[in-house]
Amino acid sequence: MLAARLYGAKDLRIEEMPEPDPGPGEVKIRVAHAGICGTDVHEYFETPRATHEPNPLTGATLPQTLGHEFAGTVVACGEGVDRATPGDRVCVRPIRTCGVCPRCTAGLSHLCAALAAIGVTSPGGGLAEYVVVPTGSVHRLPDGLSLEQGALVEPMAVALNAVERAGVQAGGSALVTGAGAVGMGALFALRANGVDDVIVVEPSPSRRAAAERHGARVLDPGAVDVAAEVLRHTGGRGVDAAVECAGRPEVLDACIRSAAAQGRVVMVALYSGAVTVDASVVRLAELSLLGAEAYPDGVFERVIEHMAAGRFPTDGWLDHIPLADAVAGLHDVRDARRVKVLVDLPPTPTEPISV
Amino acid sequence: MLAARLYGAKDLRIEEMPEPDPGPGEVKIRVAHAGICGTDVHEYFETPRATHEPNPLTGATLPQTLGHEFAGTVVACGEGVDRATPGDRVCVRPIRTCGVCPRCTAGLSHLCAALAAIGVTSPGGGLAEYVVVPTGSVHRLPDGLSLEQGALVEPMAVALNAVERAGVQAGGSALVTGAGAVGMGALFALRANGVDDVIVVEPSPSRRAAAERHGARVLDPGAVDVAAEVLRHTGGRGVDAAVECAGRPEVLDACIRSAAAQGRVVMVALYSGAVTVDASVVRLAELSLLGAEAYPDGVFERVIEHMAAGRFPTDGWLDHIPLADAVAGLHDVRDARRVKVLVDLPPTPTEPISV
Repeated sequence: MLAARLYGAKDLRIEEMPEPDPGPGEVKIRVAHAGICGTDVHEYFETPRATHEPNPLTGATLPQTLGHEFAGTVVACGEGVDRATPGDRVCVRPIRTCGVCPRCTAGLSHLCAALAAIGVTSPGGGLAEYVVVPTGSVHRLPDGLSLEQGALVEPMAVALNAVERAGVQAGGSALVTGAGAVGMGALFALRANGVDDVIVVEPSPSRRAAAERHGARVLDPGAVDVAAEVLRHTGGRGVDAAVECAGRPEVLDACIRSAAAQGRVVMVALYSGAVTVDASVVRLAELSLLGAEAYPDGVFERVIEHMAAGRFPTDGWLDHIPLADAVAGLHDVRDARRVKVLVDLPPTPTEPISV
Repeated sequence: MLAARLYGAKDLRIEEMPEPDPGPGEVKIRVAHAGICGTDVHEYFETPRATHEPNPLTGATLPQTLGHEFAGTVVACGEGVDRATPGDRVCVRPIRTCGVCPRCTAGLSHLCAALAAIGVTSPGGGLAEYVVVPTGSVHRLPDGLSLEQGALVEPMAVALNAVERAGVQAGGSALVTGAGAVGMGALFALRANGVDDVIVVEPSPSRRAAAERHGARVLDPGAVDVAAEVLRHTGGRGVDAAVECAGRPEVLDACIRSAAAQGRVVMVALYSGAVTVDASVVRLAELSLLGAEAYPDGVFERVIEHMAAGRFPTDGWLDHIPLADAVAGLHDVRDARRVKVLVDLPPTPTEPISV
């Protein structure tokens, strides 16, 4: 089969490798679509988290097949699998947890100290024709949900968790900074929670257009003072919450200055290193700065429900590319030329990709 | 009467001035004790918030009588005052709010955009024999509470609000950094809320001794790696909450590294400028960094109840000085030589200071 395997920074090879076989408790999936995300950009352009030393939890080493956002069709099940059967259309919660650390035992396994992920630090990945995953990571897609939507469940789960951390009441107001996939997902998740007054900040005109199409007010941070505009729009009050999806310190600062008293600023983006925070503003407005990471138990299920109800629409923000163009796709995501890139895995034409 | 009046940075003069008269809705108080706090240190050593331009809300200008933590006995009431009568022993909630800004109208008047405070940016202050205050700011002290305790209600309210923001469940664990008055108050407030496992970090041996006397485990940050010790003590888990009362960026960092997954770090100290935060730790542990400022409605009442029940003990952490030594007291607080300095106002000997 073909797979996109990372050998080191800036060394991704599309190459033939043997198809994996499912062991006991494992499920083999024919991948239909796999998204490229900011984590993949970090792995490819900066430092891969997989190394030549085996991952302590999963044993994974370089080369690492990339791809942790994917959906496909079950083609084989190992011994003892009762959660899936061949023919099931599924998506995969890619995180692997140790189950024994204080965070796992406290019910916060998504924050596991030894956290690994399929497609990052665990064998296999979605940028391949086939992948084998533990049966517990598989989520069946209901009728009516396409495999394209299935490949979006993971990034939408990141966004929904961030919005749930933000805790905005229905009828409230919110700011979303960055209209990549997580930013778009935050917009959808806010609207799904009854928050219609959403301002999206994004420098790219095409990404702004995508957010506007889905009901956001949009601001170009190169053209306006974001905090001043937000305060003007909210009658001097500020927004109830901001979801920071850009990963840039100056954008986090704009979120802090745009928040209402006792407002909540969620940091869901990846940051390279430390950020500087104006402590006086945080204190004098009693703000909450909240980290959001991955997705606690239950979030995948809620995303699938929202999708089935039409609350995470797919029009206007998806681009499809073949596996051969994966490196070009990584550049496009890094440079914010597209909102979301999905890699289609051959032979798509002969498969029932969507219902 | 004698008053300690701030003419500018490092220019505090103990001088005679006319006694103030209460206007309509105002109460005149003979001050018994007034605390010196970190805000006073900022006003004296750095930049006074009062200026030669009248404060927009209160009209106050330099010279400003200092002292916003005080208690005393009502000696006269202006027209229309029904909340106090001469002879009442009272403390004062010193904040003045505009009542019309978005924060005031949202029920968050303690975060009023135009916030002023008696003893800082509003005429009068507790470092004087007499002070006139609006009747609405007066809280009667119940029998059994001394005027010394009354002078501590304000800083204990800052501490209680910070602990309430931290939201630790009874039986949980907490870190308090800095054992000044707010740090001691945070220790008492945590224990009042059923949190007995409290670690206090403080470089000063005398302050550590005060915290230890009141049930805290103590750490000397000059001798140990605070986060490593906290993790060791909590079996690798970290504390449920940290209350940062030191106002130093490296201490905030230690709080962040000491917190459990989904732990809460409350920033209640005054910070000079920006702080640097390791965004990855905040995100990967889903921490909450929470500002805490002054005291919402109801906190003074709860402090007074806790005091009446003996939950804010006064032994081992108070020093009394005369008004003439106010500048020395400011130095002592800045240099952390004492936990809490109370200025006693003459003629104390002839008054029933405590019951």
